[in-house]
Amino acid sequence: MNQPGTFTLRATDGQARRASLVTAHGVIETPVFMPVGTVGSVKAVSPEDLKAVGAQIILGNTYHLYLRPGDELVARMGGLHRFARWDRPILTDSGGFQVFSLSGLRKITEQGVEFQSHLDGSRHFFSPEKVVSIQKNLGSDIMMVLDECVAWGQDRDYTAKSLELTTRWARRSREAYPRGSGGQIMFGIVQGGFHEDLREESLAQLSEIDFEGFAVGGLSVGESPEEMRRQLYHIGPKLPAHKPRYLMGVGAPMDILDGIMAGIDMFDCVLPTRNARNGTLYTSQGKVNIKRAEYREDERPLDSNCNCYTCRTFSRAYLRHLYVTRELLSYRLNTIHNLAFFLDLAAGARKAIEDGRFMAFRQQYADVYGEPGKQEMEAQQS
Amino acid sequence: MNQPGTFTLRATDGQARRASLVTAHGVIETPVFMPVGTVGSVKAVSPEDLKAVGAQIILGNTYHLYLRPGDELVARMGGLHRFARWDRPILTDSGGFQVFSLSGLRKITEQGVEFQSHLDGSRHFFSPEKVVSIQKNLGSDIMMVLDECVAWGQDRDYTAKSLELTTRWARRSREAYPRGSGGQIMFGIVQGGFHEDLREESLAQLSEIDFEGFAVGGLSVGESPEEMRRQLYHIGPKLPAHKPRYLMGVGAPMDILDGIMAGIDMFDCVLPTRNARNGTLYTSQGKVNIKRAEYREDERPLDSNCNCYTCRTFSRAYLRHLYVTRELLSYRLNTIHNLAFFLDLAAGARKAIEDGRFMAFRQQYADVYGEPGKQEMEAQQS
Repeated sequence: MNQPGTFTLRATDGQARRASLVTAHGVIETPVFMPVGTVGSVKAVSPEDLKAVGAQIILGNTYHLYLRPGDELVARMGGLHRFARWDRPILTDSGGFQVFSLSGLRKITEQGVEFQSHLDGSRHFFSPEKVVSIQKNLGSDIMMVLDECVAWGQDRDYTAKSLELTTRWARRSREAYPRGSGGQIMFGIVQGGFHEDLREESLAQLSEIDFEGFAVGGLSVGESPEEMRRQLYHIGPKLPAHKPRYLMGVGAPMDILDGIMAGIDMFDCVLPTRNARNGTLYTSQGKVNIKRAEYREDERPLDSNCNCYTCRTFSRAYLRHLYVTRELLSYRLNTIHNLAFFLDLAAGARKAIEDGRFMAFRQQYADVYGEPGKQEMEAQQS
Repeated sequence: MNQPGTFTLRATDGQARRASLVTAHGVIETPVFMPVGTVGSVKAVSPEDLKAVGAQIILGNTYHLYLRPGDELVARMGGLHRFARWDRPILTDSGGFQVFSLSGLRKITEQGVEFQSHLDGSRHFFSPEKVVSIQKNLGSDIMMVLDECVAWGQDRDYTAKSLELTTRWARRSREAYPRGSGGQIMFGIVQGGFHEDLREESLAQLSEIDFEGFAVGGLSVGESPEEMRRQLYHIGPKLPAHKPRYLMGVGAPMDILDGIMAGIDMFDCVLPTRNARNGTLYTSQGKVNIKRAEYREDERPLDSNCNCYTCRTFSRAYLRHLYVTRELLSYRLNTIHNLAFFLDLAAGARKAIEDGRFMAFRQQYADVYGEPGKQEMEAQQS
């Protein structure tokens, strides 16, 4: 059972799942949070920092790595693991989301998507096959298929047509890298916007393709927390039970917990790393804006319930000083802490599911971070 | 002999000295290079990073720390060691150099110097006593007296008058903190510009004051390497032999080696840290501009003769990629390496002096970094 893609359910608690997923670079224990390492570096921290906070897997962005340093260069350097000196699993996204969010001009055809680099305006073309080829060059453990990420506010007709294109692209992706043709595994991405029936349709179509896992894409694109949860609670539990489920680009602590509650196994988000650089820090007492004057002479650790290097070592007063003076050390210390918070949340969720007390675990966070999408949850639980 | 200020010569090799200096936070082995931690953080690295590259002592800037976060706040936080979580020795400068180089308007009187903050234009006044008070609040191991740092190009009359003011300020500084009145020790600063006789006069006046060490100030302010060496070789060996000698704000690798050759024990400079952030890296093969295209696919370590974390772990190709993409990790990895290079240079010099082969050790660097101020060295050695 050491075949990449092997997925083993260890325990469940309601819809929440405690499982493990085999990859070529080791086993991932889920639910898992994946720090985002856009261009082959999780911003401001080192591989050792990531291991110290318990990161099991990191994400690399296909779009960014294709542009810089280039996937072919990475391949010549022995792949992304070797290039970035990260020997644990890596998931690469398909670039689809970045093409649709970062690139200026873009043109979608049956064949793929033409786009302009956000760096220099140069023109590029991503086909499903090209994106698979890039991810083969990067040598990630988990590949994602090229999809069209439908923007918030798109109408039903557009969304319905788009999901069929996403399905055709998904099939071409799998054909470009048949299951077992290498050590990498491939996930399909369920689209369908904010229409439950279209989500189901997308899932039905993708389920016919032999992916090792399924992702939910196109959420957290501008909709309300309630709307996000309406889709999540609808489609999450319907994803194939014997395969890993990944909620892409989500999210805040309560979003992750509610994703787990909906049966999701994997999460990634730039929130902990980006907010760290903006001085917004997640703690067991809630969010802390470290630049506030109240921390000027606060000798306490940032979070007395956290065991990360930052909290073990420095005072809030010093962290505030570093942030206010824009010292580079500030970015690293804040990032280490925020990642520790998100990774501890996932580790705590794993333990809570094993112990059959996930909802109580979730409640601890809701008491601090607030109860989002209350109505939808009640509908879900009734 | 554990009294702070105790200075023990271990070996000499020509004018070069191998010694140790006792401070309240431990013994410093000299010759020593001191990384600059401007506002209580050596830019881009952590206390653990500094220890890993062998930093024995770091420098804090009185001017910067007085402005932010304020010396009184630092005192309430238990002093700079506790605030920044650095338990090894700290030297604080007098703020004089920053007042004369960073501040806009400034007015020098017998009493002290009025200046404007470079941050917000606010007006402040440094007297010798105030600067001692600030350094007491910071709790550094080695305090520097307020001096007037004479600019390159000032005439002889101004310089002669200025050095007498510096002497009077030095005397007031010592009176504000008599020897042994606490765990901190205090160094005087020899000025005198680019006139050998004025340098001698400054030293003669300061020698009458009971300082634990002496610094040479006002070099590396715009003069040629030859002119710098002319002063250094003249005054270095004349500084009291039984006390530590500190060449302030110097310098490049050959400057440090030539300082050691002139009998200097202590050095500080922003060059390794600042250049690291600019992508200029010091190696045993010379300077490397890491952004150059030739390193795009260079899998070798930055310096195969270096044992720092950066060189043990990453390739030039990855370091180039991090630099080109402006990843924050780049600053840390580059800084770790450059500091390792400067600290290894000092450690190598210590060993070479013990072994009586300092000039051969120096020559290894001169072969790579070039021979500066050749004429003056020959004059010195004849």
